[in-house]
Amino acid sequence: MNAVDIISDYVRFPSVSTDPAFSQGMAGAREFAAKLLADAGLRVETVQTPLHPILLGRRDGPASWPHIVLYGHYDVQPADPLALWTTPPFDPQIRNGRLYGRGAADNKGPHTIGILGLASLLRRRPDLPLRVTVLLEGEEEIGSPSFPGFLGKYKGELSKADFVLLSDTGSPSAKQIVVTTGLRGIVGLELRVKGPKVDLHSGLHGGAVFNPIQALADICASLHNADGSVNIPGFYDGVLPPAQWERDELRKFPLSEAAYRKFLGVNALYSQPGFTPLEAVRYGPTLEFNGIGGGYQGEGGKTVIPSEAFAKITCRLVPGQDASRVLKKLTAALKSRIPKGITAEIIVRQGNNPYHVIPSGRPGAPKNANPVLARAFDAVGSAIATAFGKPPLFLREGGSVPIIGDIKTETGLDSLMVGLFTPDSNLHAPNENLEIEIIERGMRAYELLLEKIATP
Amino acid sequence: MNAVDIISDYVRFPSVSTDPAFSQGMAGAREFAAKLLADAGLRVETVQTPLHPILLGRRDGPASWPHIVLYGHYDVQPADPLALWTTPPFDPQIRNGRLYGRGAADNKGPHTIGILGLASLLRRRPDLPLRVTVLLEGEEEIGSPSFPGFLGKYKGELSKADFVLLSDTGSPSAKQIVVTTGLRGIVGLELRVKGPKVDLHSGLHGGAVFNPIQALADICASLHNADGSVNIPGFYDGVLPPAQWERDELRKFPLSEAAYRKFLGVNALYSQPGFTPLEAVRYGPTLEFNGIGGGYQGEGGKTVIPSEAFAKITCRLVPGQDASRVLKKLTAALKSRIPKGITAEIIVRQGNNPYHVIPSGRPGAPKNANPVLARAFDAVGSAIATAFGKPPLFLREGGSVPIIGDIKTETGLDSLMVGLFTPDSNLHAPNENLEIEIIERGMRAYELLLEKIATP
Repeated sequence: MNAVDIISDYVRFPSVSTDPAFSQGMAGAREFAAKLLADAGLRVETVQTPLHPILLGRRDGPASWPHIVLYGHYDVQPADPLALWTTPPFDPQIRNGRLYGRGAADNKGPHTIGILGLASLLRRRPDLPLRVTVLLEGEEEIGSPSFPGFLGKYKGELSKADFVLLSDTGSPSAKQIVVTTGLRGIVGLELRVKGPKVDLHSGLHGGAVFNPIQALADICASLHNADGSVNIPGFYDGVLPPAQWERDELRKFPLSEAAYRKFLGVNALYSQPGFTPLEAVRYGPTLEFNGIGGGYQGEGGKTVIPSEAFAKITCRLVPGQDASRVLKKLTAALKSRIPKGITAEIIVRQGNNPYHVIPSGRPGAPKNANPVLARAFDAVGSAIATAFGKPPLFLREGGSVPIIGDIKTETGLDSLMVGLFTPDSNLHAPNENLEIEIIERGMRAYELLLEKIATP
Repeated sequence: MNAVDIISDYVRFPSVSTDPAFSQGMAGAREFAAKLLADAGLRVETVQTPLHPILLGRRDGPASWPHIVLYGHYDVQPADPLALWTTPPFDPQIRNGRLYGRGAADNKGPHTIGILGLASLLRRRPDLPLRVTVLLEGEEEIGSPSFPGFLGKYKGELSKADFVLLSDTGSPSAKQIVVTTGLRGIVGLELRVKGPKVDLHSGLHGGAVFNPIQALADICASLHNADGSVNIPGFYDGVLPPAQWERDELRKFPLSEAAYRKFLGVNALYSQPGFTPLEAVRYGPTLEFNGIGGGYQGEGGKTVIPSEAFAKITCRLVPGQDASRVLKKLTAALKSRIPKGITAEIIVRQGNNPYHVIPSGRPGAPKNANPVLARAFDAVGSAIATAFGKPPLFLREGGSVPIIGDIKTETGLDSLMVGLFTPDSNLHAPNENLEIEIIERGMRAYELLLEKIATP
């Protein structure tokens, strides 16, 4: 079976980690991934956690061999709004050179590419001096709540490895691959405000009570200043601005502001002071509203003052910010802005630190870096140049892979991240997809890179 | 069959006018009401409209007889959230001296009380010199869109009547009935904002686009000033403040601010400058958010920047304000506050003028008032005192009965409004109900009042 068919079969399991209704899809995806690891010749272990188990696939060997950890996640985002998918999210289809389906790009496709690249290399060189631990988790899309506990138990083993290799980041296209050198962290919460004990008739009672939606709008509006910056005292404390080489590298990125604006479908871009919009998504922190709800949302109108309303809020954090400190500041700011007549509840959802690595040879790179990682940063350039026809750019990215920061903190391991999805991949959105060309070239790049790491 | 059973059978028809899924419930309620009119000895006519038909029940007679129009509406509000009802909304039940069900209080119960009071009177005095036109509409809860067209066709007949008598307003309890002398008008619209063309990954794109929920929160927050007043230029133009006798009458109202706060279940009341909270709901204009939605609202979190968000907004208007002028000002204010990067659509839902009548004998009452109406204002005091044991208070109310203002404008007819539901009736909310005692005493009051109007 070829790689596209394998990824398709994997996507068929609806492994939505956030919703207990999908527990069967989670189990199916996990079994499928375990077989994939076994087929690559790895020894498979399923590690139970309080929620979704973690899979480990190991290739053992002498301590003198380099040891890499290959990371991926088998869970996916919810597929709604379903009506906007051209073909069903869990019935993968190929159109225009792309494989469509929820999880095709985030992250089933990319980590399958790595595993299949490794499998191909091991078939060609069965004696390759390389130790591998593939680590597939099932809670990435909900902030990896079980991961700290797992790390606590396995950090003895993991901290002896050389670095983590993964593909859960993006590149502009198959023509320009990006190696990601930093990830934003994330904190998330839900703010629920409550006014009157039941929904009220807006005629009989309107004028005497603070409308919970008004309170929510006031609080949400207060979280940004007019210039687009975040209005939480201390939010920007410690933010590490991009180095000059990082700004320069971004200027080589094949995307103009006009093209980006068109791609997003907005009539103007918007960013906070100190960053161009293209810089802001990689090097700047944010506060975003992911959802809001309250009162009557059905057809027509209903003249009520609702009893309750809520907003789901997440902040993306950049190197220098600390997730727990930002969460504390955000929570304190929200609490201080609840008006009289309204009570509020804050439900904290997730918190993960940002991550940053400076590649060997760049200004500021640590002198005592792990030599296997330094070799890998050098090798990834030629592996990608050979497989894709052009060397990669080294850039920080705006997304979060929550566990990368945790792994660094707990085990000291840095991460090498090869971007395999593209802006058109529609991550977290309807019609998610992955380019077939990237699947094929990506497997070749992984094979070349792993071979170079093992036998420089 | 007694009145409670008749109202129960009427409530069983789920006549939700806003939702086309309930068209069968609308038809059932209409047929039931037509039979009620016929049983009272009235000649029934069904008037087709573009949406829900209007029922007329006539008792004809010589032009020398007084002619009253009895108004009601057979449509009801949606019943959601269904989970909060103790017993199903359309399966009426009696508990603690109250009849529970959607429409029991708004407005099937109250107008049935009037019709049954009339029927009882006509059985006792078959030769009563009184002309009656009962008018039951089916679009009150959606702003009576078909009513202007109906009025255009029937205003010749209606304008020859003396006044409109109705019960679609409230009283504090069976111990203190209120005759309503004014109603707030209403304008309503939905604001839909759109940013990126699809939901975006908040990590990959957060920082470069204006989040539509942020735009919506900013706009909604801008609609009130910090002191609670509405921040729309010209919104308060022409507002008629309450007369001293109206403030005095309200002070006799048996409700303290502390008791009102407790009833609403809020830790503080809230009102705009110039009004106490109890005055604000009757004499002050408002801008309320009835619903808001956007982005991910399901279980857990989803890290998206949503493509769209919306808010449903209504304003209650007081005498001196004009619905179409306020709507124009509100729309202009919203349009002027749409930020760059966001597009907006405004869907206008409803607009109706406020209404005000000064009862005979009060300061400012017109000298050339219709003598039958003046007699009725005098008679209603003794009819209610006899039936309920205490004379009524004469107060403006915060709710809207959209057509009352339209009738005044089109036909010159004023309205006499006898409040029959109570604060515990849960109008527009779960567990709507009507007191059994009010059903019985109300029928008696209607019978006495109608008799006094016909034969003073």
